[in-house]
Amino acid sequence: MQLNEERFLQDLHALRAIGAAGVGKGVVRPAYSPDDIAARDWLAERMREAGLEVQFDPVGSLFGLADQPSILVGSHSDSQPEGGWLDGALGVIAGLEIARAARESGGPAVSVVSFQDEEGRFGVTTGSAVWAGVLEESQALALTDSAGVSLEDARAAMGSRLGPWVRHDQFSGFLEMHIEQGPVMDGTGEKIGVVESIVGIRDRVITFTGEQNHAGTTPMALRKDAFQALAGFNTELNARFANVVTPQTVWTIGHVDLHPGAHSIVPGCVRFSMQWRDADVDRLARMERIIDETAQEIASAMGMLVDLGPVLGVEPVAMAPAMRSALEQSAQQYARGLWRSMPSGALHDASNVAALMPTGMLFVPSIGGISHAFAEDTEEADLVLGLRVLAQAVEAFSAG
Amino acid sequence: MQLNEERFLQDLHALRAIGAAGVGKGVVRPAYSPDDIAARDWLAERMREAGLEVQFDPVGSLFGLADQPSILVGSHSDSQPEGGWLDGALGVIAGLEIARAARESGGPAVSVVSFQDEEGRFGVTTGSAVWAGVLEESQALALTDSAGVSLEDARAAMGSRLGPWVRHDQFSGFLEMHIEQGPVMDGTGEKIGVVESIVGIRDRVITFTGEQNHAGTTPMALRKDAFQALAGFNTELNARFANVVTPQTVWTIGHVDLHPGAHSIVPGCVRFSMQWRDADVDRLARMERIIDETAQEIASAMGMLVDLGPVLGVEPVAMAPAMRSALEQSAQQYARGLWRSMPSGALHDASNVAALMPTGMLFVPSIGGISHAFAEDTEEADLVLGLRVLAQAVEAFSAG
Repeated sequence: MQLNEERFLQDLHALRAIGAAGVGKGVVRPAYSPDDIAARDWLAERMREAGLEVQFDPVGSLFGLADQPSILVGSHSDSQPEGGWLDGALGVIAGLEIARAARESGGPAVSVVSFQDEEGRFGVTTGSAVWAGVLEESQALALTDSAGVSLEDARAAMGSRLGPWVRHDQFSGFLEMHIEQGPVMDGTGEKIGVVESIVGIRDRVITFTGEQNHAGTTPMALRKDAFQALAGFNTELNARFANVVTPQTVWTIGHVDLHPGAHSIVPGCVRFSMQWRDADVDRLARMERIIDETAQEIASAMGMLVDLGPVLGVEPVAMAPAMRSALEQSAQQYARGLWRSMPSGALHDASNVAALMPTGMLFVPSIGGISHAFAEDTEEADLVLGLRVLAQAVEAFSAG
Repeated sequence: MQLNEERFLQDLHALRAIGAAGVGKGVVRPAYSPDDIAARDWLAERMREAGLEVQFDPVGSLFGLADQPSILVGSHSDSQPEGGWLDGALGVIAGLEIARAARESGGPAVSVVSFQDEEGRFGVTTGSAVWAGVLEESQALALTDSAGVSLEDARAAMGSRLGPWVRHDQFSGFLEMHIEQGPVMDGTGEKIGVVESIVGIRDRVITFTGEQNHAGTTPMALRKDAFQALAGFNTELNARFANVVTPQTVWTIGHVDLHPGAHSIVPGCVRFSMQWRDADVDRLARMERIIDETAQEIASAMGMLVDLGPVLGVEPVAMAPAMRSALEQSAQQYARGLWRSMPSGALHDASNVAALMPTGMLFVPSIGGISHAFAEDTEEADLVLGLRVLAQAVEAFSAG
């Protein structure tokens, strides 16, 4: 097919203008906000111009449907409260351009989607989760944002746009192009990432309880200092993980609540978050056992109590071999020596859609690894290269 | 002198009834509260009965003055917002009983004091600090409590009680009996602690600044995780301190503010308190250098910035050799094999008074090391033993 790369970039910038905010190419377009709805209306108009049938589903995800069975290409057009111009929008405009170019030049049938609330004003990847049946519609409607507004009340702003659910069986597969949102390709100079899998996440809250004491009168040897337990746990955990993890495995202590939190008081209690991510469920389970054992051993050695909160989890999602293969061959053609296979450390709409149909993802580099911030950006040449690789994969998958 | 130990215990319990609160022997009697003033009026009446001349100074510290040059014995009768029955009150009632017993049985001249606001509703050991000239009166009056009330406004509740400053030169020395507020003697079974010195305190806020990132998409090797810097600093500091500290040295990280504090975000910044205490100024300085070097090396190794806030300090205060000697000989007489020399890890009114005159301190055990809590307590037999040791030291010092 004959892509119009200029039109693709123009549309990306036109979409950026709706909800433009902050500095640089910043965007503020949270789900169901006036700017989010205006962006969806603008997208719907572009879809109609491209000869697609426009349909909003009951939670506001926007589909531009081909008039025959097709591949589905897209992402989301809602943004973080302080977001960039590419997170989500890139995948939607790429789908639009490919659908348009395919119709103009006799390519395969392509439908386009912009899912609603991927950024989680209410849930996590809410629109695609409900569409894929991962989340019940009634549960989704009851979700509330940080101000206490329910999704049901918020979606009312979309009024008569909302229609019935879009049938799954008209789609042969799903492809999502996205910025990497990490520093890997920006560091190596690579241009294309073919996603192998979207990693699984485990998350639990751990509490060490020792003894709150006077920081002047309690000798070190008689202390049960909760901060020392946390620091010792962290050191030991890093050492024990070394034999188990891969370079793609990540783990994070991101929230620490030390009680009572005074300069002159030996802290008696610490509650902290422990999150770990990997594409392999066995490795996630091995890491969980190491966390359990390490926390219990530290607590026991220091004469403290430990509470290991429930493990919350998102399962890893493998990308479909056929989609990976199509993307790899296309990357090899357009970016020989400048692409890699990699996991996605972040969740995406593809995580949900993979439950329904063969699904693949393509990454382009993020400058400085920055996303979820006004400063998020990617070289335009890299955006265009990503579009070419994606379009070629769409053709190959549709032909296969 | 002939002590009336029953009367001593009865007065301790009578004072406890004023502001009794919480559970067990809990007391709520913060500086200038109605119960604090009622307790001071009750104490003033006991002083008059004992033949002492009552005088409140301009900030509300209560003196019961002998009619000739004398030793001064006392502590404070204000409490923490949730306090126990002995913290401060023990030293005041012990002074009262010794002054009373000395007058009844031809002992030395003894004056008694209950300093105001030792527990720091406004400052730190405020009443004794102003009396000793460590803190200017005008500065003290301008201090405000956590609700924004100034000391000047709060002391107005003491009305016409307030009088002129009490002359220092009528006192030959100062003795303060206090609960240990730590677990040492409760652990060893010892009954008397003769304080060698009140430790010095150094306190600073340290900030590590790395890079805030997505906890899914940022590989471990590319992270600048502020929590990892803090944990690494703590581990390394403990190792380096090992060659420098004594069993009496203490150090504490009691407050940790990790930013932004989310499960899924690599923390970019951590601000934490670093406090250390020792009786030796040289050791305090060596520890400061180790803290500086360790923080800078960790920051440099991890590619982060470190900000070392200003070092706030309270200087160590040595107890007078003559007072220590009198207390040691008395402890040897009444508690052979059951006493120890020890530092005070907490500040006391004696810290300030030591600038004016020979000063000594005596500790009795704290059950479970607990203080600044309703559960604070000491065996009555230990209180009585402490009274005996103190009285004997008063006689010996006054005779010498």
